[in-house]
Amino acid sequence: MKPKNETVRRQIIDAATDLIIETGIAGTSTVKVAKRINGAQSNIYSYFKSKEALIAGVFDYHQKLITATLAPALEDATSPKALITSVASALFEFATTHPTSIQIIAAFRAQPSLRHQLPAIDENDVFTKLFGLFRRYQQDGLIKPIPAEFLAEATFSIIVDYCNAKLAGEAYTSALDETTVAQLIADLVLLRA
Amino acid sequence: MKPKNETVRRQIIDAATDLIIETGIAGTSTVKVAKRINGAQSNIYSYFKSKEALIAGVFDYHQKLITATLAPALEDATSPKALITSVASALFEFATTHPTSIQIIAAFRAQPSLRHQLPAIDENDVFTKLFGLFRRYQQDGLIKPIPAEFLAEATFSIIVDYCNAKLAGEAYTSALDETTVAQLIADLVLLRA
Repeated sequence: MKPKNETVRRQIIDAATDLIIETGIAGTSTVKVAKRINGAQSNIYSYFKSKEALIAGVFDYHQKLITATLAPALEDATSPKALITSVASALFEFATTHPTSIQIIAAFRAQPSLRHQLPAIDENDVFTKLFGLFRRYQQDGLIKPIPAEFLAEATFSIIVDYCNAKLAGEAYTSALDETTVAQLIADLVLLRA
Repeated sequence: MKPKNETVRRQIIDAATDLIIETGIAGTSTVKVAKRINGAQSNIYSYFKSKEALIAGVFDYHQKLITATLAPALEDATSPKALITSVASALFEFATTHPTSIQIIAAFRAQPSLRHQLPAIDENDVFTKLFGLFRRYQQDGLIKPIPAEFLAEATFSIIVDYCNAKLAGEAYTSALDETTVAQLIADLVLLRA
């Protein structure tokens, strides 16, 4: 059952993305996606063989977008601080240009029971590279000796918290800029000099 | 339309909680809640006058549970570090004993568009007290001069990340204990000595 048509595949992903945002992961089904693109459910199944595969496909699509944004940020890194600064600034940029992707990824992260259905993080080249950089800096005593995966999780959460608070129009965000948030993340990740 | 019966009110909250976890906030309705408790939709309306009021009621219920757990942690605080340690340990305890409440609160936080429907944080005595403590320590130069609300958001997110990673059985959590996570939060919140 190889995907036959990239345009249709994207239509399915886009419709499923909208449905997840409107009605949650549980509220999304291949029937509803088919209805939304005026297609047959059997047509969806030639791209995604189950609801689980469709849901994983949506996550994978948005994760690929975010890692494509992160990839160049990893190239610039000449120090742990430069790495944190460029990762944070890439994530802020991504959150502004792709608010939907941030909401989808956050929705998946909020449901630990779904994680086993999703692509493993170490299958992703960009995360593998990021964690490798973290471990190298840890060996050099520059980054805290804490699992790189958790430092990455916490970094992502702090950025999402900031972007959500701005989106929600929280008054306090006017007293908080991206540079300050990036410095908070640096304090979290880097060993004190 | 005053609530007539606390037991029925709790049944409604519990059924709505389960529905939100199973099908998301968007997938929850007064009709579905009525069906689940074998009651009439009109009966739900005598406790909550709309779906929005019901959703806000569910959030309020779980937020009261979490703030009741936090309240004694604020009493113990003799220093900013002691405050962070006791808040973190209260939240870890709460996440273990009330995983459902954590999931509900996280689901609401992931949807910035809902925030204006929810009770404002400064209407809550415990948060008012926590933010007051943060501001006092900020005046003393012990806590970073960053909006207390954001420091609290980030603290909550890091704890939820850790609890979710454990719930999901992420291998790296075996190399990460609650004390280390609490220390990360202290590094985030406290000014470097």
